[in-house]
Amino acid sequence: MTVTYEEMKAQFKRILMKKGFTEEGAEDAAALFAQNSLCGKFSHGLNRFPRVVRYLDEGTIDPHVVPTTEISLGAYERWNGHRGFGPLNAKLAMDRACTLAKQYGIGIVALGNNNHWMRGGSYGFQAADNGCIGICWSNTCPNMPAWGGKDRKIGNNPLIFAVPRANGRHVVVDCAVSQFSYGKIEEYRLSGKQLPIPGGYDENGSLTTDPAQIEKTWRVLPMGYWKGSGISIALDLIATILTNGNSVHTVGTFDGEVGLSQVMIAIDPAKGNTPEQTEAIVNAIVEDVKSSIPVTEGGEVRYPGEQEARNIENFSKNGIPVVEEIWNSILAM
Amino acid sequence: MTVTYEEMKAQFKRILMKKGFTEEGAEDAAALFAQNSLCGKFSHGLNRFPRVVRYLDEGTIDPHVVPTTEISLGAYERWNGHRGFGPLNAKLAMDRACTLAKQYGIGIVALGNNNHWMRGGSYGFQAADNGCIGICWSNTCPNMPAWGGKDRKIGNNPLIFAVPRANGRHVVVDCAVSQFSYGKIEEYRLSGKQLPIPGGYDENGSLTTDPAQIEKTWRVLPMGYWKGSGISIALDLIATILTNGNSVHTVGTFDGEVGLSQVMIAIDPAKGNTPEQTEAIVNAIVEDVKSSIPVTEGGEVRYPGEQEARNIENFSKNGIPVVEEIWNSILAM
Repeated sequence: MTVTYEEMKAQFKRILMKKGFTEEGAEDAAALFAQNSLCGKFSHGLNRFPRVVRYLDEGTIDPHVVPTTEISLGAYERWNGHRGFGPLNAKLAMDRACTLAKQYGIGIVALGNNNHWMRGGSYGFQAADNGCIGICWSNTCPNMPAWGGKDRKIGNNPLIFAVPRANGRHVVVDCAVSQFSYGKIEEYRLSGKQLPIPGGYDENGSLTTDPAQIEKTWRVLPMGYWKGSGISIALDLIATILTNGNSVHTVGTFDGEVGLSQVMIAIDPAKGNTPEQTEAIVNAIVEDVKSSIPVTEGGEVRYPGEQEARNIENFSKNGIPVVEEIWNSILAM
Repeated sequence: MTVTYEEMKAQFKRILMKKGFTEEGAEDAAALFAQNSLCGKFSHGLNRFPRVVRYLDEGTIDPHVVPTTEISLGAYERWNGHRGFGPLNAKLAMDRACTLAKQYGIGIVALGNNNHWMRGGSYGFQAADNGCIGICWSNTCPNMPAWGGKDRKIGNNPLIFAVPRANGRHVVVDCAVSQFSYGKIEEYRLSGKQLPIPGGYDENGSLTTDPAQIEKTWRVLPMGYWKGSGISIALDLIATILTNGNSVHTVGTFDGEVGLSQVMIAIDPAKGNTPEQTEAIVNAIVEDVKSSIPVTEGGEVRYPGEQEARNIENFSKNGIPVVEEIWNSILAM
């Protein structure tokens, strides 16, 4: 079964307005969730939406909360998300970072005390849609051991780099700094598959590709072993300093992954190049990478974000595949 | 045999002035190389210095070249390094990024057409010494296959994150986005050791820990497999757009690793926090990470940059260990 993007967004918007969002907030939040499904990240789109509604019903998310600006000094702003609706606050913060970038060349909004932003890639695509280079990250609860340690002390703090293209086929890297996200590990377990490379440790302290073992120990591997561990620590430090908000450690003392620290950086390439120059640079690099000799016969090398771009094209034309049961629950809300 | 930092720097400065640098340029460049040795990165300190002198003698490095500012718009500047002395140009660019950060909260200098910057961590430590958070990277020649490809198309583009501490024991992540740098792979080969984890592919296309095999195929692994590959592409894109300079691909058409594109971002934490607040945040996170239960009995978890800080303390007190033959060659110059 498939549903059009417009229909999905309209249903999300209807429900969010019913639950207390303003029309504008509901529109933006609905678009974020529908876009996640549209680009193939179903786990952060339709499939996550019922949980969001439950949080709204339980009062865990207050639709009336809006972020406030605590510091505004030139190209740097510090915002307080007041534990509002994570994706909406994050979107507003990246919008503002882009506005600052258009004024100063580069802009940064440090968004403290915000809730989970869902898919970090959203804000990369958003910056790129605004014509900006985007760099952003969020801290998380402690869900990964530091390199050399056994217990979960650091976050898998997702890190995003986005580069705009005029055709909308932006180059976007969106990666947790663990080798696999917990969502991906769960996916492998549910489909009865082993990870393609070791993703963590089993109960004997050996590296394993068994997703169930890793879920038991919570000892996921940082990407690049010690490198991802170091990057995770640095990202948490920078986010916590710039927000004066919660570090991975303090988030770990809360009930749930709430009150996070997020950093949105935007850079305006139009300050240095014509749109045609930027476009030519991006196309040349992307084409060169794609001209690689593939490892597997008939294989191909994709640029970061290429799969999402294909999904968007495909699902825009043919509709977004949905789990009928979940979709029906949305219609009934 | 050991040499004091001051003595090493004085000798470097003497030689650089003899080779045509201004006193100020010689002082800064000498300090950069001596600091690399002081923090234990001998390969980019004393051990590299004779090669630099050879480049000066051959005219590959022109000591009279100074970078020029091509664009200066608010918090963003684009510089042209005119293929001058890489580390000196990079230092000037990061200094300027810090100045912009103190004015605007965040500052960015895109330094195009610059030569190899030696140790990227230098500019992270430099930002931190200036009280700033530093984020910087450089592209390189194509020295790594993209994920899914066989031939070298992407760079191991070193990426640096630095966070200042009042005591100078800054937190600095300095990592090539390959799992191992070629320098590290050579080190393992020379010491007759296998890599601790797979670092690339052998001639049969299998993952291997054998450094000699990887040097043969040039098929090094990106850190985190597809993740490091994506990050490498994004860093090259951003650096090339912001400098309108050379991409990894075009650098690959030159004779040697020259004319690189580098990005220096500095953020001033003092815009949001008192020094005491920032210090408390950093110490709390570092202490929490260090309180990890170690994997190995009696082991410890280190923060990024801790080993360098220890080397600096140790070698400042006891002198920097040097290879006598290399040191004597310096004295004879």
